[in-house]
Amino acid sequence: MITKSSLERMLHPKSIAVVGARRDSTNSEAWMDLFASIVQFGYKGRLYPINPKADVILGYKAYPSITSLPTSVDLVIITLSAPHVPSVLSECATTGNRNVQIFSAGFKETGEEEGLKLQQEIEEIAKKGELSVIGPNCMGLYIPKAGLSCWRGVSEKSGSVAFLSQSGGFAEDFSSYAVQLNICFSKVISYGNALTIDGTDLLTYLSEDDDTRFITMYLEGVRNSRRLLEMTSKINITKPVIIVKAGQSDSGIKAISSHTGSLAGAAHFWDAFFRQTGAVRAYSVEDLVHVTLMFQNSKPPNGNRLAILGAGGAFSVIAADACNKEGLEIPAITSDTQKKLRSIIPAAGNIIRNPIDANLVMNSPSLMQSVLEVLGKENYIDMLLLNLHVDWMYDYGPEGLIETMGGFLSNDARRYMNDKPFAVALRSYRADQEFKHACNSLEKVLRSAGVPVFRNIEQPISCLARLSQYHNFIRKAR
Amino acid sequence: MITKSSLERMLHPKSIAVVGARRDSTNSEAWMDLFASIVQFGYKGRLYPINPKADVILGYKAYPSITSLPTSVDLVIITLSAPHVPSVLSECATTGNRNVQIFSAGFKETGEEEGLKLQQEIEEIAKKGELSVIGPNCMGLYIPKAGLSCWRGVSEKSGSVAFLSQSGGFAEDFSSYAVQLNICFSKVISYGNALTIDGTDLLTYLSEDDDTRFITMYLEGVRNSRRLLEMTSKINITKPVIIVKAGQSDSGIKAISSHTGSLAGAAHFWDAFFRQTGAVRAYSVEDLVHVTLMFQNSKPPNGNRLAILGAGGAFSVIAADACNKEGLEIPAITSDTQKKLRSIIPAAGNIIRNPIDANLVMNSPSLMQSVLEVLGKENYIDMLLLNLHVDWMYDYGPEGLIETMGGFLSNDARRYMNDKPFAVALRSYRADQEFKHACNSLEKVLRSAGVPVFRNIEQPISCLARLSQYHNFIRKAR
Repeated sequence: MITKSSLERMLHPKSIAVVGARRDSTNSEAWMDLFASIVQFGYKGRLYPINPKADVILGYKAYPSITSLPTSVDLVIITLSAPHVPSVLSECATTGNRNVQIFSAGFKETGEEEGLKLQQEIEEIAKKGELSVIGPNCMGLYIPKAGLSCWRGVSEKSGSVAFLSQSGGFAEDFSSYAVQLNICFSKVISYGNALTIDGTDLLTYLSEDDDTRFITMYLEGVRNSRRLLEMTSKINITKPVIIVKAGQSDSGIKAISSHTGSLAGAAHFWDAFFRQTGAVRAYSVEDLVHVTLMFQNSKPPNGNRLAILGAGGAFSVIAADACNKEGLEIPAITSDTQKKLRSIIPAAGNIIRNPIDANLVMNSPSLMQSVLEVLGKENYIDMLLLNLHVDWMYDYGPEGLIETMGGFLSNDARRYMNDKPFAVALRSYRADQEFKHACNSLEKVLRSAGVPVFRNIEQPISCLARLSQYHNFIRKAR
Repeated sequence: MITKSSLERMLHPKSIAVVGARRDSTNSEAWMDLFASIVQFGYKGRLYPINPKADVILGYKAYPSITSLPTSVDLVIITLSAPHVPSVLSECATTGNRNVQIFSAGFKETGEEEGLKLQQEIEEIAKKGELSVIGPNCMGLYIPKAGLSCWRGVSEKSGSVAFLSQSGGFAEDFSSYAVQLNICFSKVISYGNALTIDGTDLLTYLSEDDDTRFITMYLEGVRNSRRLLEMTSKINITKPVIIVKAGQSDSGIKAISSHTGSLAGAAHFWDAFFRQTGAVRAYSVEDLVHVTLMFQNSKPPNGNRLAILGAGGAFSVIAADACNKEGLEIPAITSDTQKKLRSIIPAAGNIIRNPIDANLVMNSPSLMQSVLEVLGKENYIDMLLLNLHVDWMYDYGPEGLIETMGGFLSNDARRYMNDKPFAVALRSYRADQEFKHACNSLEKVLRSAGVPVFRNIEQPISCLARLSQYHNFIRKAR
């Protein structure tokens, strides 16, 4: 039984031993060197590299084995090759080092006899010794508040998003990429083959974790799917649970067996799972980052009715089609609203329907302010999508773009929109380097200001749809 | 009746008059100045700006009206505001200037009485005068071989892709973006409201155009959908027809009426259209560019069986799921192939199934060569997807990446693969600027070499799927 207090201790360790720390560790760019990564991230607790052939590693006194440590530690991380893991794990048990992360691969996921046997062996040792084990075959922990990261490329800043991953690669990719979109984490836990600690145990922990407001997961399989369903149903009401469930096809399920050795479960179970729990579904690293961005930066919308403000006729048609596909409603602009908007927007070349196709508004923050104020007050509009076709924002020139529209959208737009969720689609097709550069800079400015910004039209529509679906679900469930 | 010879003359004009050329035209960045765009692109024929208030525009002698021209021209382009168009069109008819492009908007697409009346008026003039009209409400022509472009940001290089667009904005976006992926055009024709020349007329012309190997379209509606279906069925057998059909939903159809004023047609008609014709379906500017890239750079595959070579367990599962969704088969690697591959790829950490998960191969062009040689010879593999996780290609460092893997993939990979279609998914999540830069540079190198390269995993899979579906369809149809 995994207790809250043992997890608490494990996730905020005051001391760590790394079995198999490399003698030749350097602080340079060796991304696969776990001990060096912990040192480089600036871990402040006591750190014990274990390697019988070294005296000192990266300035830390090295020990020959777990049994030679002066004291027990809050977390032992094993990085030795699979055949060496059972004996070290036994030493953990006998020395009372109950919290272990096994980084090493080469167990159940190989599908080969030796790996299966080794997994069984460590499972027995863990059970008998009452060990709490994260892994094997995992990257482990990235917990900024604890000053701990087992991999590189992540931020020291804490945030409110937790991520549970059966895949180490996905955890690395997601955490590196998310940070560039100003998504910060409370805890990232890569738990691989889930020997004793499973997704459901971690989910239970996170449901009571005050630092976590959003729970994201990369899931291949789970031991007790019924329990996961019940728990997700419960937690999702207060903390949105966003899940990439991989392995929805025969080929995907086959690929899972050689990745984490999990039982993927039938596709129809997972379809029902998402329907019943109301958990939010995502499909890839990029998609998970984008939908998390939308949740992190939006207040709950009242419904699924979207106003689209942009420029370009084809864009309007394509956007409307995409909304239909994703289940978003594009309500007709009432004649009352139309009248208000017409007093702001001149008729020539500007079409006031929904989508609103008004290039002039795109080239004037003051016009845009007036339009947003009108839309923000209409109670039949729940959310807004702003389509900025940067190539057509001639009036600014590339340099002016950030100052004018960047400034307006970062500081004021949300307020004028009455805090309704909104997203920006930032599109540019011109080859000119200055336009590309302007577009990238504007993207950065908006991201820093917490505006969900995207580089195409499908992603924001799909993310807004999932945001409104989630809130619609929990409104009914409450 | 639109004849081939009149279209031929119109699309390769030796003389052009631009009615409404601006007095203050400059060669600078005024993207909306059509006359200046033609001059800037370097049109070599005779050019007559028409503006009663100017003597010379950009070095060209200006004329007060069509009637004052010394000779008839191959193409008249009208850029005046809508109410002025009928009288100029009448002048075209009386002076025997039969080929006209009407750039101006403000006709049927406004949905308002005046616009509808104006459209009816010009329709009658065109009919009576037997005029061939492109537009109104369109950007017109970009035909590099004729030295003619009505908009900026496009290449002087000719290619084998034709593009027909009911939307001027889509034509601009698509042509600007495509050029950056080394997609070059035979002809781009933006034809807006389709007064006399419709998509089907242009399609007929392109079916016999030796410069065109691929036909792409952005379509909102068509006058004679039955004729379009018959023609597309016929042409698609020899020249792939790739179509973005916008307006598949009620909201989309409403948006169309205010864009080109077309009748969108019922969604079920268009579903049947794609099923019966075998035409390839695309969904947005970006999607059309990517699928065109795949067609332009690939030989016909023998089937839909894909081998995936990459690194990362989660990636393998997600890729397999995506293939399943798109109808691609991921055949099991036979024990014979497995044996051959095992002699090249060491066992530890490398999984030889399909997807093949072998980070070591990603870090060695010579290993990759050997692997591709094996896969290229297996007749149960029709196509290959290469997943390069740039963040994990530690061995090269960012600088080495282009020289080693870039060189190998650009020059040799296709040959080793026995000319089977292949695509590269180039993924990078690290925040480091040097990795981002390396990734962008590698992308450019591969694009220049004609390798279809993508920045995520869903796009190449979706494009390979459409490539194989197309060839499967025409194999059966022939």
